[in-house]
Amino acid sequence: MNDIPLPGPIAGVTGSPLDRADHIRIDDDAMAGLYGNLRARLLKLNDLDPEIEPDGALCWCSLAECPDDAELLFLGLDGETPCFAPLIEQGPPQRQQAYAAWRYLDLMPPSESATYATARSLIEWHRGHRFCSRCGNPSRIAKAGWGRRCDSCDSEQFPRVDPVVIMLAEYEGKALVGRQPRFPPKRYSALAGFLEPGESIEEAVARELHEEAGVRTKSVRYLTSQPWPFPNSLMMACIAPVEDDTIRLDENELDDAIWVTRDEVEAAFAESPDAPFIAPPHFAIAHTLLKAWLAGQ
Amino acid sequence: MNDIPLPGPIAGVTGSPLDRADHIRIDDDAMAGLYGNLRARLLKLNDLDPEIEPDGALCWCSLAECPDDAELLFLGLDGETPCFAPLIEQGPPQRQQAYAAWRYLDLMPPSESATYATARSLIEWHRGHRFCSRCGNPSRIAKAGWGRRCDSCDSEQFPRVDPVVIMLAEYEGKALVGRQPRFPPKRYSALAGFLEPGESIEEAVARELHEEAGVRTKSVRYLTSQPWPFPNSLMMACIAPVEDDTIRLDENELDDAIWVTRDEVEAAFAESPDAPFIAPPHFAIAHTLLKAWLAGQ
Repeated sequence: MNDIPLPGPIAGVTGSPLDRADHIRIDDDAMAGLYGNLRARLLKLNDLDPEIEPDGALCWCSLAECPDDAELLFLGLDGETPCFAPLIEQGPPQRQQAYAAWRYLDLMPPSESATYATARSLIEWHRGHRFCSRCGNPSRIAKAGWGRRCDSCDSEQFPRVDPVVIMLAEYEGKALVGRQPRFPPKRYSALAGFLEPGESIEEAVARELHEEAGVRTKSVRYLTSQPWPFPNSLMMACIAPVEDDTIRLDENELDDAIWVTRDEVEAAFAESPDAPFIAPPHFAIAHTLLKAWLAGQ
Repeated sequence: MNDIPLPGPIAGVTGSPLDRADHIRIDDDAMAGLYGNLRARLLKLNDLDPEIEPDGALCWCSLAECPDDAELLFLGLDGETPCFAPLIEQGPPQRQQAYAAWRYLDLMPPSESATYATARSLIEWHRGHRFCSRCGNPSRIAKAGWGRRCDSCDSEQFPRVDPVVIMLAEYEGKALVGRQPRFPPKRYSALAGFLEPGESIEEAVARELHEEAGVRTKSVRYLTSQPWPFPNSLMMACIAPVEDDTIRLDENELDDAIWVTRDEVEAAFAESPDAPFIAPPHFAIAHTLLKAWLAGQ
């Protein structure tokens, strides 16, 4: 059995030191105390991008520096220090913003990325949910940033998290990696897709592998998970032995898919010019997944 | 390692025979063919409750019997037979409807429950998302029921799935079960909670066990998953060894939490009058989780 130790990240974008302090969010008196706490910190962002120190740590400022038009989202407590993120109105998010953030993720330790991911996902969720989906009227922030309330129809919404399966098909000692059209040259990764209503993780893995590569799953082995804040995914990494290695590519989804050996994956991680592909970056769970597969997990 | 075989359910509410046929959803010509297919079937529902045969199979009728005010949601293909669910407008869902559905889940095989879960989650999502959350204008069904489109702000939304962690804390051969105030007398189950933006499954397990019972998680072992359509959860079942057995109960969430031995869990499954609690029903993943714990998984 695969016991994953806690605390501390085994995947990128995990291990935030913040205590989410859920019980405080609905306690108006306690929250008033936190807003007035002189040590309270505000995450420094340029739109959705983080400001970071040379060592990859997130930059914070005091609440006094909060822009007048920003609302505050309570991220949690760092020891006794309340930490907030600013919610500033913007247009619809641009897809290329995700790639801008990758530059920062490359420099940040996983625990800092996890704090940033929490803030980014919350901000994007609020931006996309200014109106009540049930009645169409404007809604307002509730639970210190962890919900929205519609006073018109008396309903409440909570931040969305989209579960995504990401997996290596495995056949006779080889693993299946694929590339999406938007990837940089030679970059391959694990196949992935959104889990749908009415299916389990195991069924979603089997469906996605069949849809995208035409391979039939025999079993599914869950490995680990991490958030992926573009905008609000939960990545669930699995390894799936399959019945045979004949690939039938879904060309709407993938440019290519190839079977790779352990030696080839090791060459990719070593950045060898002979490697058949470029490995995913350390902060992507596909990196953790390929490393775990190499280690025989 | 914990390889979960496919196909076929190991948990309740999994193993639907339907092929979701994702590629057809956006193919207007193919969908027109399916709507006109004389063998096409419509799921029979009374509001959100299923009609079922004496053997627990779902009841279907022809598309000709579809109510005039219903829209069609494409569930998938059963062999070559297209299967739909009716989307009928209703008021906000009532919490007690979930318990009405439990009566049916008790009678249905897991594969039928999984088809029903898909339909129910989709219907409830559409009912709660008639308006665009981005701009507040009415949106319309897209992708044969697997999305909604807002023509006012040119945005698209997809059905929501809420990941939930459900777990047994484990200490010196005992497992932790708790009861919510709304449970029937003596019923206990695994603790559970919604995963939040910015955290992994493993972190959510540790946070929930600490919030609800005050216990500190040492590691997390994922077991299996299933959908839970009340209204749209993905239940992810884990076992979590903890540091000690001192319980500090969150009385807002739980009436009680107790450590139970393997013998006591076996007595609960045997419906012994001496059992310290009543076990969760077979269609709940807490049942699968407790059985797996008994089996030493």
